[in-house]
Amino acid sequence: MKSVYLLSGLLLSASLAVHADEGQWQPHQLAQLQAQLSAKGINLPGKQLADLSQYPMNAIVSMGYCSASFVSPQGLVITNHHCAYNAIQNNSTKDNNLIENGFLAQSLKEELPAGPQERLYITESVTDVTAEVSGNLGTDISGKARFDAIEAQRKALIKACESDDNTRCAVVSFHHGMEYFLIKQLMLQDVRLVYAPAEAVGNYGGDIDNFEYPRHTGDYTFLRAYVGKDGKPAPYSVDNVPYQSSNFLKVNADGVRAGDGILLAGYPGSTSRYRLADEIAFAANWQYPAQVNTYQQMINTIERLSAADADLKVKYAARVKSFNNRMKKLQGLLDGFKVTDIHAIKASQQQQLVDWVNASASRQGYQQSIAALRKVIAAEQAFSKQTYYFDAAKRSDMLQAAMQLYRLAQERQKPDAEREMGYQERDIKMITSRLARLERSFDPKMDLAIWAGQLAEYLAQPETVRVAELDNALGLGAGMTEAQLTDKLQALYQHSSLISSDGRKAWLDKTVADFEQSDDAFIRVAVAIAAKNLALEAEEKALKGQLSKVRPAYMQAIIAYNNTQGKPVYPDANGTLRITYGSVDGYPAADGVYKTPFTSVKGLIAKRQRDYPFNAPQNLVDAYQAGNTQGFYYDSLSAKTDTSWTCRLFNCPAARMQPFNSVPVNFLSSADTTGGNSGSAVMNGNGELVGLNFDSTYESITKDWYFNPEITRAIHVDIRYVLWMMQYVDNAQNLLDEMHIVRQ
Amino acid sequence: MKSVYLLSGLLLSASLAVHADEGQWQPHQLAQLQAQLSAKGINLPGKQLADLSQYPMNAIVSMGYCSASFVSPQGLVITNHHCAYNAIQNNSTKDNNLIENGFLAQSLKEELPAGPQERLYITESVTDVTAEVSGNLGTDISGKARFDAIEAQRKALIKACESDDNTRCAVVSFHHGMEYFLIKQLMLQDVRLVYAPAEAVGNYGGDIDNFEYPRHTGDYTFLRAYVGKDGKPAPYSVDNVPYQSSNFLKVNADGVRAGDGILLAGYPGSTSRYRLADEIAFAANWQYPAQVNTYQQMINTIERLSAADADLKVKYAARVKSFNNRMKKLQGLLDGFKVTDIHAIKASQQQQLVDWVNASASRQGYQQSIAALRKVIAAEQAFSKQTYYFDAAKRSDMLQAAMQLYRLAQERQKPDAEREMGYQERDIKMITSRLARLERSFDPKMDLAIWAGQLAEYLAQPETVRVAELDNALGLGAGMTEAQLTDKLQALYQHSSLISSDGRKAWLDKTVADFEQSDDAFIRVAVAIAAKNLALEAEEKALKGQLSKVRPAYMQAIIAYNNTQGKPVYPDANGTLRITYGSVDGYPAADGVYKTPFTSVKGLIAKRQRDYPFNAPQNLVDAYQAGNTQGFYYDSLSAKTDTSWTCRLFNCPAARMQPFNSVPVNFLSSADTTGGNSGSAVMNGNGELVGLNFDSTYESITKDWYFNPEITRAIHVDIRYVLWMMQYVDNAQNLLDEMHIVRQ
Repeated sequence: MKSVYLLSGLLLSASLAVHADEGQWQPHQLAQLQAQLSAKGINLPGKQLADLSQYPMNAIVSMGYCSASFVSPQGLVITNHHCAYNAIQNNSTKDNNLIENGFLAQSLKEELPAGPQERLYITESVTDVTAEVSGNLGTDISGKARFDAIEAQRKALIKACESDDNTRCAVVSFHHGMEYFLIKQLMLQDVRLVYAPAEAVGNYGGDIDNFEYPRHTGDYTFLRAYVGKDGKPAPYSVDNVPYQSSNFLKVNADGVRAGDGILLAGYPGSTSRYRLADEIAFAANWQYPAQVNTYQQMINTIERLSAADADLKVKYAARVKSFNNRMKKLQGLLDGFKVTDIHAIKASQQQQLVDWVNASASRQGYQQSIAALRKVIAAEQAFSKQTYYFDAAKRSDMLQAAMQLYRLAQERQKPDAEREMGYQERDIKMITSRLARLERSFDPKMDLAIWAGQLAEYLAQPETVRVAELDNALGLGAGMTEAQLTDKLQALYQHSSLISSDGRKAWLDKTVADFEQSDDAFIRVAVAIAAKNLALEAEEKALKGQLSKVRPAYMQAIIAYNNTQGKPVYPDANGTLRITYGSVDGYPAADGVYKTPFTSVKGLIAKRQRDYPFNAPQNLVDAYQAGNTQGFYYDSLSAKTDTSWTCRLFNCPAARMQPFNSVPVNFLSSADTTGGNSGSAVMNGNGELVGLNFDSTYESITKDWYFNPEITRAIHVDIRYVLWMMQYVDNAQNLLDEMHIVRQ
Repeated sequence: MKSVYLLSGLLLSASLAVHADEGQWQPHQLAQLQAQLSAKGINLPGKQLADLSQYPMNAIVSMGYCSASFVSPQGLVITNHHCAYNAIQNNSTKDNNLIENGFLAQSLKEELPAGPQERLYITESVTDVTAEVSGNLGTDISGKARFDAIEAQRKALIKACESDDNTRCAVVSFHHGMEYFLIKQLMLQDVRLVYAPAEAVGNYGGDIDNFEYPRHTGDYTFLRAYVGKDGKPAPYSVDNVPYQSSNFLKVNADGVRAGDGILLAGYPGSTSRYRLADEIAFAANWQYPAQVNTYQQMINTIERLSAADADLKVKYAARVKSFNNRMKKLQGLLDGFKVTDIHAIKASQQQQLVDWVNASASRQGYQQSIAALRKVIAAEQAFSKQTYYFDAAKRSDMLQAAMQLYRLAQERQKPDAEREMGYQERDIKMITSRLARLERSFDPKMDLAIWAGQLAEYLAQPETVRVAELDNALGLGAGMTEAQLTDKLQALYQHSSLISSDGRKAWLDKTVADFEQSDDAFIRVAVAIAAKNLALEAEEKALKGQLSKVRPAYMQAIIAYNNTQGKPVYPDANGTLRITYGSVDGYPAADGVYKTPFTSVKGLIAKRQRDYPFNAPQNLVDAYQAGNTQGFYYDSLSAKTDTSWTCRLFNCPAARMQPFNSVPVNFLSSADTTGGNSGSAVMNGNGELVGLNFDSTYESITKDWYFNPEITRAIHVDIRYVLWMMQYVDNAQNLLDEMHIVRQ
């Protein structure tokens, strides 16, 4: 546990109002926030930021799981090293390990295909379709019927929108179903690797420094989008040409200073800012501890089996990394809940809302909506507790493949529009490639061991959470040990065609009858539990249907309450394009410890060790020690405003910092980010690129529930470090020439 | 390694001039420093500070190994918990563990004798006796003759000074023999334990937090000095009465704020600020690494043997603690040398001096002195390398006792004035009690194991460092294993009367002949190597004699150089009374990390754990959470000056900090301290007590060699925490009433 700030004071001041710098705003909301933007020293008008066809928003792109931006007229894209990791790995060989060595294409010809999975998405339009999706549902319809009706509308809108193979559409719920927007994106399919620093730069500090600050990670990589000669998106071809985006970000080589206002644009994945106190209590007391146990068990199993097996180690490395990341996040959430009583803060906010509602008879509708929401939440939590261990008991890649293939066969019996989302024609390609790719990250021995561990956990639970269909299909009995389970499961792996990639592929076109008549061991289990799975899915949809009615009502209460105070409300993150603004700022990390907003190459070198992940390359050290900076990428920091924590702490009306005297590497800001914001452009008040978002501090992990403005900080790569690396360490002059670099 | 500031900039600006806040000044020097004191906001005139008979210096006392001060008219003394540890331990029983529970005497009658070893020393006079000690030596005398001549003068002066049993005198060398002062101290022998907080307060953080910051240690304890009814010092007696010191410190309950100037008075033990670059190189490259190995080996042995033996664990606990402390300090020194190239800084300072000397023919004398010093230093280092492992080979408590007893018999043959210091009549009591006390911290099994380990190390060295007398006496041969050595040494422990306290005592009065005829195994070894020991001692004295001639000459060069710049020079610490001043100030601990100057009870509670050393008492937590502070011990910090690091960092001309909103626990200052300064009074500009010094930060450990003003910080207990603990947690109202508490 790192952070020790008890926010007893905040409890008193906690309100539903948005704190300074909190907010993952929909671009169109920026027009309403002009005063706040101006106060931050942001020169770009809110209206301009709201317009996706104008600079800088027309330079912002999504990678699907990460954010990125165009930085040249020739489709050059900058994102995080960790976002481009697959692209780098795909091009690595035993003899030329690009992860370890880094990569630089000195010309277009040398640029490497990022891989068939890599895509870039450009948001072309965002249209309010609330009326179409839920406008005509009426108030009577609820539960699964409501869920199904909404899904049908969504599917129809998507189908109409996806006019060709280069367009991807989605109908996304905002404010938990209060609004729906149709997002239309252009999909670029030919993405190439242009320049990645060595891993000892791009992932300096590795897992040890994950979620930590001070940080010295050069988490950046350059890609390039290509299109067909006709300028239209096309799959990879040697004949393709660089994509000419409608715009690209200017790069400001003077970067930012402490106290400067910044903008950050990207695709944050998911937050839970408007949850009830009950939901926090459930996560803190039940869900997260259960998940910690599950992940820890799986990690232990993987480490035990792969300790003496290099092949297994490689196959499961990415999974262990992701589990460890998830574990650190869970631990950070649990630690954060101990330090700050977010449950109490939320309960107090909720009470304020209730008080406001009760203060006027005209608000009685809200009263009912809050009570209704609490009831559905209670039912949802009971459902989660009931199904958590059944889900665990299905945690075998083989069983998952069998279940998915059988479901696909079932769904294919219906017309495309009626199929479950994820099993429509538009999804087949993804299912196919995922089943093929499994090969690289799967081993029957390991799959069996993980599954046996999870089944043992399942069997250790009260009988009420057990599922007879699964017990019968596998012959499970109470008190079975992991060893007995292992013996029993062994037979399944010996009698299944799904082990091989070809075997799995063969099942893609089979009929329901083929499945039901099969004696393939995994297929038989999948068939045996399919009805139960569908029944649970229906229960879950009914809950979601109820929530799609009561959560919007609760959100309306919150919005109405904030309206009375003239405060706009941003929706929870949902993977769509958002803008957040904040300040370059340090934070009080613990009693007696203030983390300052910049780190430097000087500090990076001081942290250097012989071994990964602190083995910064010698040429970096040499370049720094040779003073190769021409005074240009050195910072002479001066805090510009008095709104930063630094200045709030020391109350300096016109604080100016001492010369920084080094090349800055990473910096902190108070911008409001979450997973998915990796690679997001960090821009100065003119919308010029000054950094890339790539992580958050450990103390910030609870921000998905509650944005604590005192300590929540995002960690960015300073563009000056990127430029310095390019100029003095990796000799990427060709790319520097291609970009539009400005100074203050 | 915690600190990462590479001081490349400092290399350029390094000079022999004293940096701001550097300086452990002799009180009489304060008169010269009036301008600096005023600049710090210190109101007390330098002349007043220089006068040991005036406030506040007449309230400052020494415990011999720690510093302390009087805080009431009735002899009440405040010092560190760790300085009073023996006094607390001596009064602990199995049923009433005062270390664990703390102790408070509600009246004089309840106060407990601190133990026969505890003393308080009040410096009564400091007289320059340079003329008497070395004034008449002439320039021809050198080597051992010079050493002996100086020793003879010192002993004579001490004898004349120690007029009665209550006076202790010492002749101390300043500036490495350039000056000698006769220090006369009144010795109070009846010291009692008055109030100690529970260990979970007084040693909160324990060894884990040793040398660390942020820190939350309530390292304070109250003692009381008693004297006979006639007002004269006397050994413990129930009839004794509280000592009425000539003065006592006022206590300021409003404490200090960031940027405030502070004074610190106490008895720093030893520094090496005027050493040659060669000496740093020797310490960093040879001496410290060798010591790390030695300590680590002994720690390993003790931990191995005591793992399953609770009795051994208790007996050697203090030794392991002290070894670990020493190890952490050594590691801090080695880490610090890596972070800051102190050798280069010293070399550059040395070069400046040489350049200045060479700039004028009139300074040629200095030129010779530098060359001469380097030559003697080289000889001294060779001697250290030669004898280091022979010293290790004697690291048995039994052998040490035998050697000391035999030496005592030898010395007793001479008239008292001619005896070696430490073996004179005035020393017999101490030798006797030390030999008696050994009982509590010694076990033959362990002594043997440690010794065998050290002998194995000795045998692993080149033959040139071996000593034939020892090899023959013990029958040592090259390549003997630790197991073989253990077998061999076993016999010694079976044939020695020294194992028992009575056995050792019996040897105190024996003659040289008795020793030489004895067949006691350890006595025989001691006798066998005695001549060699004396020969080496003579060699060492010869080196010291040479150094006592060449170091003063070098110091004179430094002083002359500083004089040209109008800068006074303070002597290295030597256990005598000193004053240092500085500012309440944080520091940049690492790239991206700034440690702020105060910690708080809020942070203490956040750090709390179930187990020692973080098991802060529940009544402390309760008192804090109940808001029991009356707003009085809460701080509303405001930085007063713009000279602090805080303000240099943020360049705030009139910076004011936000309300602190908690009870402060510890704070940092830039005062110049070292070992021996534990318990030193930290005073505000009016000389009112605002804290107690108790530790330094990890990054400061190298300060004994080089005071780096950017990062060197001492750690103090805030007096407000002491007062708050007394009032709201431990109910020591009787003591609060006794003190003179003022507010700003």
